Amino acid sequence: MGFQGTTAAGPAGGPAGPGRGAGFGAGAPASVVGLLAALEGVGADPRRGGYTRPGFGREEATLHEWFAQEARARGLDIERDRNGVLWAWWDVPGGSRSNAVATGSHLDSVPGGGQYDGPLGVASALAAVDHLRLRGLSPSRPLALVVFPEEEGSRFGVACLGSRLLTGRLDPAEAAGLRDASGLTLAEALAESGLDARHLGRDQAALDRVACFVELHVEQGRGLIDRDAAVGLGSSILGHGRWKLRFTGQGNHAGTTLMADRRDPLVAAAGAVLAVRDAALAVPEARATVGRLQPLPGGTNVIASAVDLWIDARHPDDEVTAELLGSIHAAARAAAEAESCEAELSTESVSPTVHFGHALTSRLVGALGGVPVLATGAGHDAGVLAAEIPTAMLFVRNPTGISHSPEEYAADEDAEAGAVALADALQELLLVP
Amino acid sequence: MGFQGTTAAGPAGGPAGPGRGAGFGAGAPASVVGLLAALEGVGADPRRGGYTRPGFGREEATLHEWFAQEARARGLDIERDRNGVLWAWWDVPGGSRSNAVATGSHLDSVPGGGQYDGPLGVASALAAVDHLRLRGLSPSRPLALVVFPEEEGSRFGVACLGSRLLTGRLDPAEAAGLRDASGLTLAEALAESGLDARHLGRDQAALDRVACFVELHVEQGRGLIDRDAAVGLGSSILGHGRWKLRFTGQGNHAGTTLMADRRDPLVAAAGAVLAVRDAALAVPEARATVGRLQPLPGGTNVIASAVDLWIDARHPDDEVTAELLGSIHAAARAAAEAESCEAELSTESVSPTVHFGHALTSRLVGALGGVPVLATGAGHDAGVLAAEIPTAMLFVRNPTGISHSPEEYAADEDAEAGAVALADALQELLLVP
Repeated sequence: MGFQGTTAAGPAGGPAGPGRGAGFGAGAPASVVGLLAALEGVGADPRRGGYTRPGFGREEATLHEWFAQEARARGLDIERDRNGVLWAWWDVPGGSRSNAVATGSHLDSVPGGGQYDGPLGVASALAAVDHLRLRGLSPSRPLALVVFPEEEGSRFGVACLGSRLLTGRLDPAEAAGLRDASGLTLAEALAESGLDARHLGRDQAALDRVACFVELHVEQGRGLIDRDAAVGLGSSILGHGRWKLRFTGQGNHAGTTLMADRRDPLVAAAGAVLAVRDAALAVPEARATVGRLQPLPGGTNVIASAVDLWIDARHPDDEVTAELLGSIHAAARAAAEAESCEAELSTESVSPTVHFGHALTSRLVGALGGVPVLATGAGHDAGVLAAEIPTAMLFVRNPTGISHSPEEYAADEDAEAGAVALADALQELLLVP
Repeated sequence: MGFQGTTAAGPAGGPAGPGRGAGFGAGAPASVVGLLAALEGVGADPRRGGYTRPGFGREEATLHEWFAQEARARGLDIERDRNGVLWAWWDVPGGSRSNAVATGSHLDSVPGGGQYDGPLGVASALAAVDHLRLRGLSPSRPLALVVFPEEEGSRFGVACLGSRLLTGRLDPAEAAGLRDASGLTLAEALAESGLDARHLGRDQAALDRVACFVELHVEQGRGLIDRDAAVGLGSSILGHGRWKLRFTGQGNHAGTTLMADRRDPLVAAAGAVLAVRDAALAVPEARATVGRLQPLPGGTNVIASAVDLWIDARHPDDEVTAELLGSIHAAARAAAEAESCEAELSTESVSPTVHFGHALTSRLVGALGGVPVLATGAGHDAGVLAAEIPTAMLFVRNPTGISHSPEEYAADEDAEAGAVALADALQELLLVP
């Protein structure tokens, strides 16, 4: 698949050249909507609806190629680091990559996801470069556009896999051994994409270049609908984690095995699904979900021998999340025992609640003319980066309030307003020496 | 994959020639265990354990090729009918195909199934041909070995698909439109295997050739363990059916969606799984199972938008099965309503309880020296054929009592005893003009 870059700027860095984007007037920035339109065919999922673009997979690689094309069309210098993170550099004449402003997001998706979660932030970063050039400003710092791989963790189970590897928040050897549903390890998937798992891990040199990070993302709740605003800033990311429960019983024939003789792990798992919901309902502000569940072997006329299910749980107080998991685990064990099955709980990832630094966010609230500030329940690479460098998030209104679904949406004018707001935020940060 | 036939008989029909099977003495019949050993590499499933050999798929085709090779090595005449059923004919010199005795089974499997369910009956039929030849008998009727495709219904949802098509128990147009999990239709799968879906349907000419049918199968319960016998005959097949329940809710983000705002179809489905079990427990002799369940889209951090689950339910009294489904449907609707979801029930297949004809079975009890007669809870092509022609079943002891699992088993000596019993039964039937 080949992509043609659409940009207002010439290939060399610096202020804007004449516009070249198809369908855009001379000197106009590429529209976010136009950029996203190029991605419509990639990973479309006819069975689930929406898009399925697993991390370190073919679809994500196609989108990374698109990003690199668009960045090169803007004269940016593309590199892929040893953790698979893409960096596109708008260097400052005579400057050094030691105090860069970075912005970006991700291009992978959940299975059957919407078209804005991730790509909106990447497309807005590209459009923001066009806006900044057209403003003719002379930044005193380099700008880096960043694309993190496998943010959703849909393939290897660990959310924000790229940013966790970059910052060393995940043991590289453990990461290399993560397996996808087909049994392929991350090390094998990396090798297919030209990376060597032995080089995974914290990249201090890459991090040392960046002074601050701003991620733009479609909002995944109703905060901006309620506040009647196209754009807002993030105050915090709800603490969240993922756990896997495996129930083991006795696989057998559905017709010949008497009800009294069964050790059916799907019956135990069903009890656990209800227990997860009940546990979250009992704790104010908690959310807990089972969205992925796999009986093995999975035949209609077969009592399952095992069932895997995954729990996503979140709460502002990390201790409360731990207690919530404790009560879910106890309920799962009880459900397993009632069926003479076993239940085994393992942790896939845990992320504490992140509060974005007040100083940076306040400054951006000012630069953006007083936009609302809101918390989010969704995880982001920005939450991982926040432990390293000053980090902020920009949200764009989602009029359905629905995300991780084809119904996720952003109005065209809100998407363009988001890119302008991102350009405003970057301008504020780039002009400080 | 190439197979080499192992047989005691020469390629021409009629009494036995000199033995040629590798590892067998001159004149010895092929062993069932030796025949099955050739299949060990086909469809081995490292993730589930055991074997996955979906109907009208690559693995089943490989096994059909193996069967054709073995039949040809015995001088049998192979044909594939328009419904994909394989027939291998041992013709009678000067006779006609109008009063044949038929025996056989299937070579597809459930996902992660054992190695005996289906192949034991096919291998025993081949071995029985060798036994009959070595006995030097002169049958007065032709013998047909039959292999039915997609008996498990693991791929297209309808159990005994081949025999249902052959007998017209399934509407051919409806069958052609059945879809597998990847969305492929049966018509498309047939085309890949060289069949034309427009020619599906009842094949009167094929059926008119057969006077009676005997299927040998590994037992899938504990009947022969309890009776301390290697071989038994079947009295009846428990009525059974398959239904699909689809729960529809609202897909959304697992982190941003408050518990109170959810319409989670997996919570409703979990309630239904428990309701299926409870409904079956409340009805003596009933069995009901959910072994296959798929949340859509199936992401860890995604509230499902829909969940499909399949119900296998069985009871000797077909009216009771219908009542059981009625109560399951009511419980599913209630579970859906409690989550503001919808539940939709559809029927995939229904098979009434089959009682094998007393005359044929009694005659075989005599021929086999008084083996036990037992009912089975498992469905078989023999149950479909029984509505057309006198039909009987032979069971071989399964010392684990477990089936549809890699733990399914038959001792070598029991497998050989089964082939001898099948040869005895066929001899009884073939010698009657």
